[in-house]
Amino acid sequence: MSKPLNIGMIGYGFMGRAHSNAYNRVSNFFELDYHPVLKAVCARSADQVKAFAEKWGYESTETDWRKLIERKDIDAVDICVPNNLHKEIALAAAAAGKIILCEKPLAMNAAEGEEMCQAVEKAKVTNIVWYNYRRVPAVSLAKKLIDDGKLGRIFHYRANFLQDWTISTDLPQGGTALWRLDAAAAGSGVTGDLLAHCIDTAIWLNGGIKDVNAMTETFVKERTHQLTGKVEKVGIDDACTFMCHFDNGSLGLFESTRYARGHKALYTFEINGEHASIKWDLHDLHRLEYFDHRDEGRLRGWRSIHVTDAGGDHPYMDHWWVPGLQIGYEHSFVHQVADFLTGLGKGEPVGPTFRDALETQKICDAVLSSAQKGSWVKLG
Amino acid sequence: MSKPLNIGMIGYGFMGRAHSNAYNRVSNFFELDYHPVLKAVCARSADQVKAFAEKWGYESTETDWRKLIERKDIDAVDICVPNNLHKEIALAAAAAGKIILCEKPLAMNAAEGEEMCQAVEKAKVTNIVWYNYRRVPAVSLAKKLIDDGKLGRIFHYRANFLQDWTISTDLPQGGTALWRLDAAAAGSGVTGDLLAHCIDTAIWLNGGIKDVNAMTETFVKERTHQLTGKVEKVGIDDACTFMCHFDNGSLGLFESTRYARGHKALYTFEINGEHASIKWDLHDLHRLEYFDHRDEGRLRGWRSIHVTDAGGDHPYMDHWWVPGLQIGYEHSFVHQVADFLTGLGKGEPVGPTFRDALETQKICDAVLSSAQKGSWVKLG
Amino acid sequence: MSKPLNIGMIGYGFMGRAHSNAYNRVSNFFELDYHPVLKAVCARSADQVKAFAEKWGYESTETDWRKLIERKDIDAVDICVPNNLHKEIALAAAAAGKIILCEKPLAMNAAEGEEMCQAVEKAKVTNIVWYNYRRVPAVSLAKKLIDDGKLGRIFHYRANFLQDWTISTDLPQGGTALWRLDAAAAGSGVTGDLLAHCIDTAIWLNGGIKDVNAMTETFVKERTHQLTGKVEKVGIDDACTFMCHFDNGSLGLFESTRYARGHKALYTFEINGEHASIKWDLHDLHRLEYFDHRDEGRLRGWRSIHVTDAGGDHPYMDHWWVPGLQIGYEHSFVHQVADFLTGLGKGEPVGPTFRDALETQKICDAVLSSAQKGSWVKLG
Amino acid sequence: MSKPLNIGMIGYGFMGRAHSNAYNRVSNFFELDYHPVLKAVCARSADQVKAFAEKWGYESTETDWRKLIERKDIDAVDICVPNNLHKEIALAAAAAGKIILCEKPLAMNAAEGEEMCQAVEKAKVTNIVWYNYRRVPAVSLAKKLIDDGKLGRIFHYRANFLQDWTISTDLPQGGTALWRLDAAAAGSGVTGDLLAHCIDTAIWLNGGIKDVNAMTETFVKERTHQLTGKVEKVGIDDACTFMCHFDNGSLGLFESTRYARGHKALYTFEINGEHASIKWDLHDLHRLEYFDHRDEGRLRGWRSIHVTDAGGDHPYMDHWWVPGLQIGYEHSFVHQVADFLTGLGKGEPVGPTFRDALETQKICDAVLSSAQKGSWVKLG
Repeated sequence: MSKPLNIGMIGYGFMGRAHSNAYNRVSNFFELDYHPVLKAVCARSADQVKAFAEKWGYESTETDWRKLIERKDIDAVDICVPNNLHKEIALAAAAAGKIILCEKPLAMNAAEGEEMCQAVEKAKVTNIVWYNYRRVPAVSLAKKLIDDGKLGRIFHYRANFLQDWTISTDLPQGGTALWRLDAAAAGSGVTGDLLAHCIDTAIWLNGGIKDVNAMTETFVKERTHQLTGKVEKVGIDDACTFMCHFDNGSLGLFESTRYARGHKALYTFEINGEHASIKWDLHDLHRLEYFDHRDEGRLRGWRSIHVTDAGGDHPYMDHWWVPGLQIGYEHSFVHQVADFLTGLGKGEPVGPTFRDALETQKICDAVLSSAQKGSWVKLG
Repeated sequence: MSKPLNIGMIGYGFMGRAHSNAYNRVSNFFELDYHPVLKAVCARSADQVKAFAEKWGYESTETDWRKLIERKDIDAVDICVPNNLHKEIALAAAAAGKIILCEKPLAMNAAEGEEMCQAVEKAKVTNIVWYNYRRVPAVSLAKKLIDDGKLGRIFHYRANFLQDWTISTDLPQGGTALWRLDAAAAGSGVTGDLLAHCIDTAIWLNGGIKDVNAMTETFVKERTHQLTGKVEKVGIDDACTFMCHFDNGSLGLFESTRYARGHKALYTFEINGEHASIKWDLHDLHRLEYFDHRDEGRLRGWRSIHVTDAGGDHPYMDHWWVPGLQIGYEHSFVHQVADFLTGLGKGEPVGPTFRDALETQKICDAVLSSAQKGSWVKLG
Repeated sequence: MSKPLNIGMIGYGFMGRAHSNAYNRVSNFFELDYHPVLKAVCARSADQVKAFAEKWGYESTETDWRKLIERKDIDAVDICVPNNLHKEIALAAAAAGKIILCEKPLAMNAAEGEEMCQAVEKAKVTNIVWYNYRRVPAVSLAKKLIDDGKLGRIFHYRANFLQDWTISTDLPQGGTALWRLDAAAAGSGVTGDLLAHCIDTAIWLNGGIKDVNAMTETFVKERTHQLTGKVEKVGIDDACTFMCHFDNGSLGLFESTRYARGHKALYTFEINGEHASIKWDLHDLHRLEYFDHRDEGRLRGWRSIHVTDAGGDHPYMDHWWVPGLQIGYEHSFVHQVADFLTGLGKGEPVGPTFRDALETQKICDAVLSSAQKGSWVKLG
Repeated sequence: MSKPLNIGMIGYGFMGRAHSNAYNRVSNFFELDYHPVLKAVCARSADQVKAFAEKWGYESTETDWRKLIERKDIDAVDICVPNNLHKEIALAAAAAGKIILCEKPLAMNAAEGEEMCQAVEKAKVTNIVWYNYRRVPAVSLAKKLIDDGKLGRIFHYRANFLQDWTISTDLPQGGTALWRLDAAAAGSGVTGDLLAHCIDTAIWLNGGIKDVNAMTETFVKERTHQLTGKVEKVGIDDACTFMCHFDNGSLGLFESTRYARGHKALYTFEINGEHASIKWDLHDLHRLEYFDHRDEGRLRGWRSIHVTDAGGDHPYMDHWWVPGLQIGYEHSFVHQVADFLTGLGKGEPVGPTFRDALETQKICDAVLSSAQKGSWVKLG
């Protein structure tokens, strides 16, 4: 019999919905030792949090996150609030002995992240960070191919995350909806929001990064702040590019921007190995592109693998429909919950843990520092 | 306040899962007058139906579908069993005054379908058939574009549905998993299973069909029957192609097969109009291809529209995530439930009704008859 | 030392240019026993033919094709005039003992074609028809793959040739530029112009056709005739679709139209075999799509083969540039000349001969006949 | 009447063929004031240069380039030899008052390039460098779109040139065929060979570059030298990446490598503007991808423009075939010759001149210098 895991969610924005959906669906599609129970959700506005709870099936609501953390009927705390609140909540939750699921990026910076790691490690609470893209089946397949040595020695890793939603100068910064444009709430711009995803996947697939050399830009220098109503200087990076060296000797190239007209959420990566190469693109997340030099010469070509095989060949897909029928963005969260609960059942940690996510945080910090200095910055 | 609609599901196969998922999710993403309640699920095996009920949250189970239909706490009956059982259940459900949601194709043939239409019309019960592809956002967008006159006069409509899962001669026919290969349970092969989808979309987008000229083939002539264990003649069509004329003067071309190596569930259609053309492909269901001759000459090209705009421009997408993040196959069922419940709230029929689906059934019958005769067959 | 082959070209339209270019270039890129010499070009207008000769380097001109055929310094006659003139010229050229290169389709119909075959066979003159698409490297590669048994048993062959240049009702028919719209000059519409290409490739790749069942349509019923200035009935087929059975048991599906908005010269084919499938598309003629079920399960996908390998793996490509650099439409003609001259050096016939092209002509006749009758028509 | 322009070609390798083909073909497809005459070709091996001359139709041969330059019957000298010989020949040709067409990159470094510029400017001889990709029709179209303001303010320019032909450690360096791997002959590796193309296009499309920050790598540290037979240190850059700022405030990102398994000659660029974005890819050089935010909301998407319109909308294409029929790599050279001869007829310079190409050379120097220093390097 499956055991309940009582979830207490803090925050109910975009990620609150994505996580709630994952909790609600995972037991329909996966056989697990644990099943999530939506025990409580917390946010400052009593009315709004009640409406959210009713919609998603949370049993109760709170308006003070400290109260939620204190509740004995909560096993796990899910932190879905802006980045500047992660640390304080995580520290309190760890102290209360709660399992913690934290939205990415882990923290405002590596120093905060280190504190959080120490807190969860000292408290010995299970912890995970929502770098959900690892669990897109095509990305998970890429990981298996690399681990199986299909690519051989790696020469190049490149990734980008391109959006175009902040081109208009009329867009304000800050507030509930646009906190990602406010440096005080977000810590950074595309670096923490988008490149963090690229980095997490990269170090998972290709190992550690030795040094970085970055360039950032803020194209729109001033925007009206939604809370103050005043035109204020924009503190975030609108675009960030960096070159790097991986520990395995391969070269890395990363770029992110919110000014790439025509791209909505185009997270792509490509890995070039001695024998084979891999490409992936979030806009068609159910496909993996693969080139293998060991194929018969006249038949070599990039293969577009439709990662929907329900017969066992493709990660996670035996839980869904039939070959040819795609799943979507939200399923990566369902998979993360499934893996997390599986690990919980076995008593094994499931990544990315806080400690894993701290590595990404350190690289983000190094990237921002390098951009400021205009020179190479070494990691660790 | 949203009112409950008590669902009684009959069957729990692939479609049972797809429908249950839709009922479970719709209220998380849509604000509706009604919300589905999973009251009961019915199947012959008591053990298996209980396991299914537990997994999906059905409150109770039945092993005799007649009992389920008689239950007063059931508002709507969902028929998810093989085609040869649709008619009998639908007639009983109509007689009991239940709302009916029936899997496609409507029936084994048009005669059965006509009986079913008369039954629901006489009983005045709300009815709908699960031709789910109408509610893929890209397909719904195509409908809007055509209705808005973007394409102008239509010259060509072509569609195909290509699979490759029955190429092996070792595959048996019949039984629970493979009833689609058994003519006694399925009525026909690809015609009722796959072309029916193509036809439903076609007449919805492009209007009625006047006449058809078809060719069918059964590549593997004999297969072991799963129930009898004997090698028996295969009665279904493995492949079916037909040409036709639409009422609006355009030419139609349809093909389906389960012997197209490399294609898993490749449902595609293309419509060529005087001013513009449209293409769609189930393997990348979140995209619509569009060509408009009225674009500036040097800039004319096929546009790949990523139908994920959450800002209101793309059907249904304001209910999901943010631009660039795709949804999947299963969401078409969620949309169908949402539309159905919306119609129920307004007291308006929502297509495809039994009567709409009967039109598709008639065309399927004409196709099979034409293939047998080797000549054109007129509709109506 | 390479020997000269004196060419006498009749006609100087679009195909006159394509052939002249091929003659001019072949010796720069291929080592051959023969090299073409542009001896003479013939057309009715003395001024225009002189301008053409000067541009392309023809040594002399004629205005009467009979004179050109009589010239002793002409080894080979290239027939590049409208279809209704092919037979008369070919018969005279054969009688004069000339090598003949004839534009496709071979003739106005199979009866004419048969006469032409008998003439060249009686005269024992080398002959070839310009079905150039066989010599696109990707198509030649497809032929090799099929001949090597890569696909196994073939189930389906489908091809189409889609254009959109005659949608406007203002377009006149007939005259020099638009003779393809005039049934008297062209014999048929898309069937002889476009489907003939599809059929030639199909029977080359997949063998003979047993029977056909066709539908044709003329969307614009009347057009002004360029020569008479009068509005006249349009005699050609604007669109033609046919289903067929191949001798090898596979099913065929062919479609052509000049009313497919957005497609300029979209000749595509796809072949589905037991083990593997192939797709090709003239709009990206340097690519071949290939799917092989024998690939490792998790890595199966359609490969996009960039058919530009200069290292010997890809047909003809060792004569051009380096891997990754594509050639274009016109190169298929260069390859046909190269193959033709190679055969001439060896004294071996090179297809498609008149006799090969007659087979295509017979199928075109059967297609038009079937469309008229509305029923299946058997070949041979 | 068209006037002859007597060409003297020095070198006969890959580029010798590409240029000779362009000279041979241009008059068949373009009406120009001048027509090239292949007067002489020069190379050290008398036998090989004779064979080349015969194949391509050169009237005479030389084995000493100084003799060729002295010949009075030579109007224009085409320099097609390794980079380390460009300067000396160009200086001599300028002194002899010859028109000069020089292969790219202009020189071994900017200092050499400056000397060459001064020489041609002092001698007032017409000069051009073979950055042929400007004349791919899709690239020329991109230029027009940008100049017409279609993109608005530019935010990002990114380009890469990816190959995979030097991955094998067995590949030797140096000698006739592999001089590109020999730093003494080539000056640099991918920077001068490949990035130079990307830079030339970039500054043509997007204006000057202010500063660069680069990283280079040599993956294979030692290779056998073809001439000495000894294992020697590899002096070239196998891969080079750089970030930069353009004068217009946009950010640039460039990468080139010969270790990107699966890519043969994948030169791509993408430009993101306020209103619209553009992408291009040498592997499908006849297409331009275009996204315009000003399109109707629901219909926004990346358009794949098949740049083959012969009706005047697409640059150069009115000289070739009909819509839908693509041209290839070599045609970019034909277009360069056509434009060059047109300019000659008008007495107007046609870019890229030596002075234009010097700008690219300076950026290449800055890139290599930055990579060595590990810091930003300012231009100018």
